[in-house]
Amino acid sequence: MSKTVELARHLEKLHINNMYKNDFYWTWDKTDEELDAIFTVADALRDLRERNKSTRVFDSGLGISIFRDNSTRTRFSFASACNLLGLEVQDLDEKKSQIAHGETVRETANMVSFMADVIGIRDDMFIGEGHKYQKTFMDALDEGYSDGVLEQRPTLVNLQCDVDHPTQCMADLLHIIHHFGGVENLKGKKVAMTWAYSPSYGKPLSVPQGVIGLFTRMGMDVVLAHPEGYEVMPEVEKIAAENAAKNGGSFTKTNSMEEAFADADIVYPKSWAPFAAMEERTKLYQAGDKEGIDALEQRLLAQNAQHKDWTCSEEMMSKTKNGKALYLHCLPADITGVSCEKGEVDSSVFDRYMVPLYKEASYKPYIIAAMIFLSQVKDPAKALMEMDAGDEHRKNH
Amino acid sequence: MSKTVELARHLEKLHINNMYKNDFYWTWDKTDEELDAIFTVADALRDLRERNKSTRVFDSGLGISIFRDNSTRTRFSFASACNLLGLEVQDLDEKKSQIAHGETVRETANMVSFMADVIGIRDDMFIGEGHKYQKTFMDALDEGYSDGVLEQRPTLVNLQCDVDHPTQCMADLLHIIHHFGGVENLKGKKVAMTWAYSPSYGKPLSVPQGVIGLFTRMGMDVVLAHPEGYEVMPEVEKIAAENAAKNGGSFTKTNSMEEAFADADIVYPKSWAPFAAMEERTKLYQAGDKEGIDALEQRLLAQNAQHKDWTCSEEMMSKTKNGKALYLHCLPADITGVSCEKGEVDSSVFDRYMVPLYKEASYKPYIIAAMIFLSQVKDPAKALMEMDAGDEHRKNH
Amino acid sequence: MSKTVELARHLEKLHINNMYKNDFYWTWDKTDEELDAIFTVADALRDLRERNKSTRVFDSGLGISIFRDNSTRTRFSFASACNLLGLEVQDLDEKKSQIAHGETVRETANMVSFMADVIGIRDDMFIGEGHKYQKTFMDALDEGYSDGVLEQRPTLVNLQCDVDHPTQCMADLLHIIHHFGGVENLKGKKVAMTWAYSPSYGKPLSVPQGVIGLFTRMGMDVVLAHPEGYEVMPEVEKIAAENAAKNGGSFTKTNSMEEAFADADIVYPKSWAPFAAMEERTKLYQAGDKEGIDALEQRLLAQNAQHKDWTCSEEMMSKTKNGKALYLHCLPADITGVSCEKGEVDSSVFDRYMVPLYKEASYKPYIIAAMIFLSQVKDPAKALMEMDAGDEHRKNH
Repeated sequence: MSKTVELARHLEKLHINNMYKNDFYWTWDKTDEELDAIFTVADALRDLRERNKSTRVFDSGLGISIFRDNSTRTRFSFASACNLLGLEVQDLDEKKSQIAHGETVRETANMVSFMADVIGIRDDMFIGEGHKYQKTFMDALDEGYSDGVLEQRPTLVNLQCDVDHPTQCMADLLHIIHHFGGVENLKGKKVAMTWAYSPSYGKPLSVPQGVIGLFTRMGMDVVLAHPEGYEVMPEVEKIAAENAAKNGGSFTKTNSMEEAFADADIVYPKSWAPFAAMEERTKLYQAGDKEGIDALEQRLLAQNAQHKDWTCSEEMMSKTKNGKALYLHCLPADITGVSCEKGEVDSSVFDRYMVPLYKEASYKPYIIAAMIFLSQVKDPAKALMEMDAGDEHRKNH
Repeated sequence: MSKTVELARHLEKLHINNMYKNDFYWTWDKTDEELDAIFTVADALRDLRERNKSTRVFDSGLGISIFRDNSTRTRFSFASACNLLGLEVQDLDEKKSQIAHGETVRETANMVSFMADVIGIRDDMFIGEGHKYQKTFMDALDEGYSDGVLEQRPTLVNLQCDVDHPTQCMADLLHIIHHFGGVENLKGKKVAMTWAYSPSYGKPLSVPQGVIGLFTRMGMDVVLAHPEGYEVMPEVEKIAAENAAKNGGSFTKTNSMEEAFADADIVYPKSWAPFAAMEERTKLYQAGDKEGIDALEQRLLAQNAQHKDWTCSEEMMSKTKNGKALYLHCLPADITGVSCEKGEVDSSVFDRYMVPLYKEASYKPYIIAAMIFLSQVKDPAKALMEMDAGDEHRKNH
Repeated sequence: MSKTVELARHLEKLHINNMYKNDFYWTWDKTDEELDAIFTVADALRDLRERNKSTRVFDSGLGISIFRDNSTRTRFSFASACNLLGLEVQDLDEKKSQIAHGETVRETANMVSFMADVIGIRDDMFIGEGHKYQKTFMDALDEGYSDGVLEQRPTLVNLQCDVDHPTQCMADLLHIIHHFGGVENLKGKKVAMTWAYSPSYGKPLSVPQGVIGLFTRMGMDVVLAHPEGYEVMPEVEKIAAENAAKNGGSFTKTNSMEEAFADADIVYPKSWAPFAAMEERTKLYQAGDKEGIDALEQRLLAQNAQHKDWTCSEEMMSKTKNGKALYLHCLPADITGVSCEKGEVDSSVFDRYMVPLYKEASYKPYIIAAMIFLSQVKDPAKALMEMDAGDEHRKNH
């Protein structure tokens, strides 16, 4: 029995009827079985691809991407995932588009979706805005579909919003699952999700939030560490605490990086901006207050600079479990002496973990493909079995 | 019998041999039966897609798009149409291209067409230039093909020029046909194609021209209304008058929006620039006269501002047939109080017609696909029947 | 027997096992039989396409393009080639990408290659840098593949570096082969690869270098002509001399355009920058010395201007074999009186050779497709025969 058939049989047992024709905003919207289904399909698609089986679901169709911020990894992951399933990516480049001043999201959403099967949106710049944009967009498609404007209602993959970064965090988690030899081995593992110093300013909070909102579901001991003033969204902390209570792990907070790293199995040191400051920035942008924005930036850079000791140094790594915690990062990292004078991580640490870091990233295309697959294929287990049994090759000759 | 088979049988009766391997510049180049064929194929492709039938014509092949002006709707419509038929879009982004100063259109045309099946060009900015560019481009491909440079001679879809906007106006018309329950119900309907105030300047004339050149073929009473000084191209007015004479409707002009709206079944209020001013602008651009261009812009904005009362208000709508004329717009519209202080249409009117407006837009991908289909498929009726009977699905699993 | 079968049978006899899963950097890395294989497959793919046979190798898969310089011809050629074989192009636009300051090529290379089958890179701007970038990129993929990060190791097509422009020069050569009725007819033909004046500055050396490195393998008499100071890379001159010695032709240098053109069968007059100046420019860029760069530019423009007599005039053409040498250019050319006051070629000469020039360019998509085919298809002769015998059409209906 092939790995894919084994995975398909596991999939058959999961209660995932709600996934079909549904969107993916946040991991905490999804049941444990739904997340399991995504990991299962991701692994199956990878197995099929490795064995040169075709995994095309679509003969034609479009995946619409909207990147309201620069992106390489997520852009290529989305393109790869769409291509693997037979969709062509059409990017809505707002600079080349005739989106009128004051044009509603509702109008744009419908205009780009006439033949779209999937929408991928990255909008992570402004607290309180990113998710709202995605929700408004997809609500407009609900209306468009029920009004008969659209023949199909495309499904959303959240490619990063202000609240969660589910394709990243699920790729991170699938990497950990494989690294530790199975999801059952994660129970009791200590994860340090910690802030780290970067000379740049205003990095999104969606990764730390996504990590504490997801990893706490695995029975792990998740520690969120940051200097005072670098709080994340309280709503997400609440979710993390509830998850931990329900799943037999823990969720704790500390203002000490050392404490978080102590005896950790996994560390995820990464810069982000303080939640409150990001709220302030959103308001300044809405008011068009450029002076205010500049002043805020200066204040935040100065605030950051007080915490240069928050860095994933060799010394810090030595405090982890046997000095060998698995180091995670969503990339690109700010590497001390490479990309900046002083950054998130020592270059010797980064270099030692380069291969696992790249593997971590390699799961993202499959996570996205699995999200699309489960929202678009009515009987996913059957489809995987057919692909496994079929004669269609990805590469002929 | 499926709708597609019914449509294919209708198609069989039409005399459309000239469409194969031919370009689409202007609707008035085409016979009534040729336009009928486009509507028929558009409806059939939509029916096939709704029933999950594959409509791929091409296993590989390129649709080249050239947008010399920003575009969302037309860009996505062209991409959708190409994808539906199996073509991949390759956009000639003149900014990223190494098009030499003084490089001839003939050279560019051949260089991008070696494996192209379809060319879509939008060039609507300068009166006297847009169509000329398209014609020069396609003439070059004629030469390239007859000289043995190209293995195939791609066909053109005019995605908007300075004279006509056929994909837009045919989508508008197909919308009306369905709205009124068939082309036979259009006879005698009154259409008001009217100018409307917008705070922006220099909008193309191709929509009003396309509308009067096309709608007058349906036996409708077409009224073109605009303030004095906002004349469209006289050649197109002549075509409209001839069409009306031949097809039993009428084509009249007025400088009163009220008169046009009175008892109208359909209204299409939209801003455009005066033809003479656009000719002047073209000359100023050719001379590189920036001061002249700025002065012209100021003059035109001031001229526009004298006609703020030309707006599709609730009051104006109340003058139409039972106060319920069908409101058309190519989108995006300048909506009073939404996208501008004072614009083409009241927000309450626009909101009431939002669903029909989006439906209107939804026909464009199918109109473009039908144009491509009829220029690329030798026996289109047979092809539709085969697609209808076939087992190939657009979406498998 | 079809032309394709004939070509496939020829292919069977060639020793080309090393091409599978291998990169294409420079023509002089490849054996004569390997180059023969590329020409053979290019001709076969063209024959199959002309006969409407499908040549898809891939059901899904990505061709990643990286253009570090503007490009139309090569961009469209790469897109066409990928499409012909079933790959979708995903362009790494460094402007839209989140490539961190200091991010290593190793990281970028892996991040964009998770599902890539082919990489096409153009990096011709800086002497000593272009090839290095490609090599570093592909070495990173070797590591990524052996480390288990990548499921497949994509292969490279060099779309132009600082040393060679193999897709251009092989397209040029295939054009000549067909023009003269077969590779056997090239022996003893005189080729003048000459510098020509252009008002622009700093054009790459990869074309003249590629030409002397490749054409000298055909038993031709290759003359490299340029004003003093416009030397190309000595390493490549050495290769050209060795090729000539081995293949029974000659490689000579002169500072006289007349001498090169005298009795030439083929002329390739084209501007390029002096090698030493380009080395200097690279250093100035690395030092961020803007004033130095500007000063260098002024010096080079002044130096160029001393050689306006180096132009492919009618008079110069009259000195060639019967006044009818085949004129080559990679396009776009600087045409006197068309794209500039004084340039590389008289407009009457250029116009007379327009059709052959466009044909020359038309080979590039097929050369690229052949390079991809031979690096990705294990048994290329068998694959061509199957494509020839198969029922799969490029265009159905």
